[in-house]
Amino acid sequence: MKIIGIDPGIAIVGFGVIDKQGSQLKPVQYGSIQTEAGLPVPLRLKQIFEAMQTLLDTYKPDEMAVEKLFFNRNVTTAFTVGQARGVILLAAELAGIPIYEYTPMQVKQAVTGYGGAEKKQIQEMTKMLLRLKEVPKPDDVADALGIAITHAQMRAFISLVEGATT
Amino acid sequence: MKIIGIDPGIAIVGFGVIDKQGSQLKPVQYGSIQTEAGLPVPLRLKQIFEAMQTLLDTYKPDEMAVEKLFFNRNVTTAFTVGQARGVILLAAELAGIPIYEYTPMQVKQAVTGYGGAEKKQIQEMTKMLLRLKEVPKPDDVADALGIAITHAQMRAFISLVEGATT
Repeated sequence: MKIIGIDPGIAIVGFGVIDKQGSQLKPVQYGSIQTEAGLPVPLRLKQIFEAMQTLLDTYKPDEMAVEKLFFNRNVTTAFTVGQARGVILLAAELAGIPIYEYTPMQVKQAVTGYGGAEKKQIQEMTKMLLRLKEVPKPDDVADALGIAITHAQMRAFISLVEGATT
Repeated sequence: MKIIGIDPGIAIVGFGVIDKQGSQLKPVQYGSIQTEAGLPVPLRLKQIFEAMQTLLDTYKPDEMAVEKLFFNRNVTTAFTVGQARGVILLAAELAGIPIYEYTPMQVKQAVTGYGGAEKKQIQEMTKMLLRLKEVPKPDDVADALGIAITHAQMRAFISLVEGATT
């Protein structure tokens, strides 16, 4: 099963595609969509939307995972990130890809086994779990992979529960 | 020139299309796009996006006007409204329609001539300027028409300035 994790933003959208084979997690592709600060926001949203469509069309992930909410940021940031997140969710919905959301706490718990983990610990564990040589840069890319891993872990649990009840 | 004003939201998107003929403003169509609270957000975003595409295709506005920012709302509201606003801006950008943004203060000033006007005063002036029998309901629809009127007034000013310098 292929999972795409997304860390939304207007300047940088981090993405990470991983393949879950049994308990094995393999990185397929990861990187970022970047838009120029000087461009009008509607154009930047269009660039993000079209890049997302290309990504989904190229890697054909079965499911998408994104961070749930932004608690400790200000209103303007929430509004700006929200706009970018809107076109990202739209691209997935139009492609018929189910979307799952996780809180930062769930990401910490799933990736490191500890809900109070530091960002650096999550990044190191992400590197280890995917057998990468280095922590991907910028942070948005590492975060996107972390969210994809979270979904891979949670997905296994969901299947188990579903399997037990049917 | 046809102008579409939009008041974005996830549950209700107000829209108002007006036609500016010289100094005359005529209402063309107004109403709202509504989505059900129980549905998943990505699906609601898709419904808004597709309804926007239908509106733009049906009324073929020359320009779009939306409110600029949400200063006095909380982070969660800004985030949710931001997502809806993102897909609305995307629909306009994909249709090649220029987008103009106005602050609540500019709307008050343009519609009533007074930057400290109450919401009710803006709605009454909107009704008068467009020769409507009643203030459109819900508020989102009246607000969308107010934003369209604001752009119609500002547009005249922009043309005048451009005309003076060329």
